[in-house]
Amino acid sequence: MRTPAYAAPSADEPLAPFTVERREPRAHEVLIDILYCGVCHSDIHQVRDEWGGSIFPMVPGHEIVGRVSRAGEGATRFAVGDLVGVGCFVDSCRSCEQCRAGEEQYCREGMTGTYNSRERDSGEPTYGGYATRIVVDENYVVRIPDGIAPERAAPLLCAGITTYSPLRHFGVKAGDEVAVVGLGGLGHMAVKLARAMGARVTVLSTSESKRQDAMALGAEGFLSTRERSMFREHAGTFDFIIDTVSAQHDYNAYLNLLKIDGTMVLLGIPDPTPLSAFPLVSGRRRLAGSMIGGIRETQEMLDFCAEHGVASDVEVIDIADINTAYERMLKGDVRYRFVIDTASLGEA
Amino acid sequence: MRTPAYAAPSADEPLAPFTVERREPRAHEVLIDILYCGVCHSDIHQVRDEWGGSIFPMVPGHEIVGRVSRAGEGATRFAVGDLVGVGCFVDSCRSCEQCRAGEEQYCREGMTGTYNSRERDSGEPTYGGYATRIVVDENYVVRIPDGIAPERAAPLLCAGITTYSPLRHFGVKAGDEVAVVGLGGLGHMAVKLARAMGARVTVLSTSESKRQDAMALGAEGFLSTRERSMFREHAGTFDFIIDTVSAQHDYNAYLNLLKIDGTMVLLGIPDPTPLSAFPLVSGRRRLAGSMIGGIRETQEMLDFCAEHGVASDVEVIDIADINTAYERMLKGDVRYRFVIDTASLGEA
Repeated sequence: MRTPAYAAPSADEPLAPFTVERREPRAHEVLIDILYCGVCHSDIHQVRDEWGGSIFPMVPGHEIVGRVSRAGEGATRFAVGDLVGVGCFVDSCRSCEQCRAGEEQYCREGMTGTYNSRERDSGEPTYGGYATRIVVDENYVVRIPDGIAPERAAPLLCAGITTYSPLRHFGVKAGDEVAVVGLGGLGHMAVKLARAMGARVTVLSTSESKRQDAMALGAEGFLSTRERSMFREHAGTFDFIIDTVSAQHDYNAYLNLLKIDGTMVLLGIPDPTPLSAFPLVSGRRRLAGSMIGGIRETQEMLDFCAEHGVASDVEVIDIADINTAYERMLKGDVRYRFVIDTASLGEA
Repeated sequence: MRTPAYAAPSADEPLAPFTVERREPRAHEVLIDILYCGVCHSDIHQVRDEWGGSIFPMVPGHEIVGRVSRAGEGATRFAVGDLVGVGCFVDSCRSCEQCRAGEEQYCREGMTGTYNSRERDSGEPTYGGYATRIVVDENYVVRIPDGIAPERAAPLLCAGITTYSPLRHFGVKAGDEVAVVGLGGLGHMAVKLARAMGARVTVLSTSESKRQDAMALGAEGFLSTRERSMFREHAGTFDFIIDTVSAQHDYNAYLNLLKIDGTMVLLGIPDPTPLSAFPLVSGRRRLAGSMIGGIRETQEMLDFCAEHGVASDVEVIDIADINTAYERMLKGDVRYRFVIDTASLGEA
């Protein structure tokens, strides 16, 4: 099926109209008519080949919401008309310890990315959600529950699960003091989700201008990280810090904000930064990392969001605005996620 | 009581004979006639004021084993003649969350070190175990179980608990793959203890010469960290890494040796080293720290050692050899702990 899309022809060209050929769904696959696709910061990194190894032309997009329009004969989990989502990956080895545990994101052979990756069988490049259709194995598709607007659900497939998973995995619970470092696409979801879990949330940001937003999102506190005295005054305060920042920053200063036995989880990958063992050793603190989440946990997160009235704050854009949107994201000028209305791509 | 001891008069003088005045035990205190005192690497750091704030003259020593020779009227836990131990601290606030949880080493007000610290009430300096006697509150004293030679028990009070506590706290269990980085005073205890817990232990060391020793201590494997290819070949191998090294080394290389969800615990405090978030994020790995252990857990460790026939490998020295012993320790020339026979200090 010839499918309207937008692609980056190379690392130094803007995104432009492109046509993807989608196959008929195989036995366990579903064809999804895409309604919305969120715009993730990692789209920019990959489009510009900042992580190396990018495959061009590249159709980005891994925060996909759409409706099943056709199902392979062996597909049993979804029916035509179902509102579904696809996140950061569309396949994995299915046999390693991680895949068997439903933690496909840590697949020993490496997950197959929704775009900028290669299919396990054919080796063909994968093309993402800046398009009107996608074909995905139903085991890598999740259901969007009733009650979440589809455009506000799209960013949950990456920003939502990336913050939900570590909050759950590291045991954040009601009454915990949680700090969220950085108030962007990930950070705003971390605030909403931690709050919905009953934690007391404080936002830590370089931008004093985000104080009002933090409060509006449900945070109970805001601390400016430009004030160096803040780090001394609030030492030993937090049970858990969720750090969404991709720019270099001093982990040691943040680690000292943790209580004894506290955990700080990194979601971004800044350039290497000097780490002192002292804050870890002196308070049995932990510095951890986390990467998206598995399919089962993504469904659990969506159901949690529906139950607690949580969704992403989005600005819906036409595909023609995508290059401008990238520039605005690089300036931090988005509250808090751009979402492409794929109707703007024209007829499927 | 005038008590023979050895002290460092200042940061740049060798240790020399000194006399400490020990008080009569108060209500809940016991007077201990010291039999043996282990020599910890941190003794050298503090004697040379390498951590700052050292108090001189300094009588080091926090791996103390001796017999109770007098008990205050309110002391109920120990009787005259009991073989007991004193570790790294002799007091704490007793009311903070950590003290109430039996984790006095993380006391909010700071534990009172066995030496180079100040008593909470009087502000007087504390003097340690390079002496023939010490007076300690019985709540900060542990019992040396039958079956452990007293000179081999002494290093358990610091090196033993420092390795036992993180192995327990982070849940090392039978069948786990555990790596021990560095085979010194801490490392040799980590090998013995992890082995006794049923783990498979591999020693990682810069010194190929330690291979035989590692095996003799009970390790099942040895990897030379000078071979850079080792880090590639053994990526994703270990459930747990216990890192005893105080010299700078590349945490990232070691973190990549962990399985998904693995934990590396730092016990030493090297100078800050560049840390990449990548090994943490890509495998949900954790980098943690740990510092000695609480009184209750120290007793648990001693009982565990007695039950499993674990003790420190020691070289017993006279106090007159202490300055030479320090030089040998700095060259790594000790297997694996010097222990002072305090009889060499003369009559108490």
